[in-house]
Amino acid sequence: MPRYKAIIEYHGARLVGWQRQPNGDSVQQHIEDAITKFCGEEIRIQGAGRTDAGVHALGQVASFDLKEDYPVKTVMNAINQHMKPAKVVLVDVVQVDEEFNARFSAKSRHYLYRIINRNARLTLDHGLAWHVRNELDSDAMHEAAQVLVGRHDFTSFRAVACQANSPVRTLSVLDVSRIEDEIQIRVSAQSFLHNQVRAMVGTLSLVGKGQWSKQDVQAALDAKDRQKSGPNAPPYGLYLTDVDYDN
Amino acid sequence: MPRYKAIIEYHGARLVGWQRQPNGDSVQQHIEDAITKFCGEEIRIQGAGRTDAGVHALGQVASFDLKEDYPVKTVMNAINQHMKPAKVVLVDVVQVDEEFNARFSAKSRHYLYRIINRNARLTLDHGLAWHVRNELDSDAMHEAAQVLVGRHDFTSFRAVACQANSPVRTLSVLDVSRIEDEIQIRVSAQSFLHNQVRAMVGTLSLVGKGQWSKQDVQAALDAKDRQKSGPNAPPYGLYLTDVDYDN
Repeated sequence: MPRYKAIIEYHGARLVGWQRQPNGDSVQQHIEDAITKFCGEEIRIQGAGRTDAGVHALGQVASFDLKEDYPVKTVMNAINQHMKPAKVVLVDVVQVDEEFNARFSAKSRHYLYRIINRNARLTLDHGLAWHVRNELDSDAMHEAAQVLVGRHDFTSFRAVACQANSPVRTLSVLDVSRIEDEIQIRVSAQSFLHNQVRAMVGTLSLVGKGQWSKQDVQAALDAKDRQKSGPNAPPYGLYLTDVDYDN
Repeated sequence: MPRYKAIIEYHGARLVGWQRQPNGDSVQQHIEDAITKFCGEEIRIQGAGRTDAGVHALGQVASFDLKEDYPVKTVMNAINQHMKPAKVVLVDVVQVDEEFNARFSAKSRHYLYRIINRNARLTLDHGLAWHVRNELDSDAMHEAAQVLVGRHDFTSFRAVACQANSPVRTLSVLDVSRIEDEIQIRVSAQSFLHNQVRAMVGTLSLVGKGQWSKQDVQAALDAKDRQKSGPNAPPYGLYLTDVDYDN
């Protein structure tokens, strides 16, 4: 059975997230239902990142097997056709070998968090970035962020409901930069805990406002207690941008 | 009477354009009505670019006089407050001298046109870019675009309803570049004719598809006949990005 790898883009606003849920439309369900409509197969697909409700993706990755060896363009166009009008599309499909698994083969996951830091309401970026009115010191945010880079117990930055066996993760990148009114936070790791990026961004926003110091971030990390770090930043500023694999 | 200069951002989707119209909400009306609610004055503001219905702006400029000498932050915040929930905001307000006129003092107007060139429907960029499925040759578009740079009679690229006295304009920049799936067209001139940018982009899209050559663009320009150039590109890909003034 040929295995396919799909690159997926979605606008998270009306989605309950990647994973199937009883209470609304998920990305997984949109794609699986479209596959059934396309070729009659009822399958489960594997996704690289289980994004939360409201989170966007530019380069989510999924893998799945189909009984037939279809041209990849046929697979992509048929699934896209059947997903209309959902704001979920496959932007690329390739065939991969049978060892490939979008979730378990992933070497690195990359997220972008967008903050628009200004007084005026958002117009074009409404729903596409977090609007923060208080002036944020992005240099202080970047410096404090470096406390979190490396291998740590991220208990203070995971959802209480997080189901991962271990709270230890290795953060390879946590960069904060400003381009005029926009603050971009780029985060990379092999894998993340539930809500980890949003909890880190929410915590760094306290540093940006001058309410927290770099030492406070260190203390929050050391506390291994979700109550000791900042609030989750809202989901609509977060984008899963891409996922790396060998080759 | 102090004169104010405002920088304005808007999402064009539900707007009839810059100028007051009997058939819907304009940017001008939103701002003028908000000024009345703020200080009771019924004034007419002057805009730098009369953008069409559906066209976006990142840096539209307007000038207006108020009887009182308010702090600029007060003017900005009050107008923004009264424009809620319209997708129109002032992102900056400064005081300028009485010679300044947003329309007549403008030295250069800059527009960006965004095309997403791929097969898959748009999700995050829905309403924020023109979706073109046919593969476009952006290098050929850029080369053909250079035919239009300089001082020309742009009759072939103006709306039949255009009210400008002269069809002659001097285009200083018309650059086409590609970043992965996105084609960005950057256009600058001291002033433009009605629909000029959209007519030029629509014409260049024919070049991108291989249907037109650079020579066809030259022939269209020389014909001085709107029927001889391409269709208008849709408004939702177009952004007035900024306007230059002396100092």
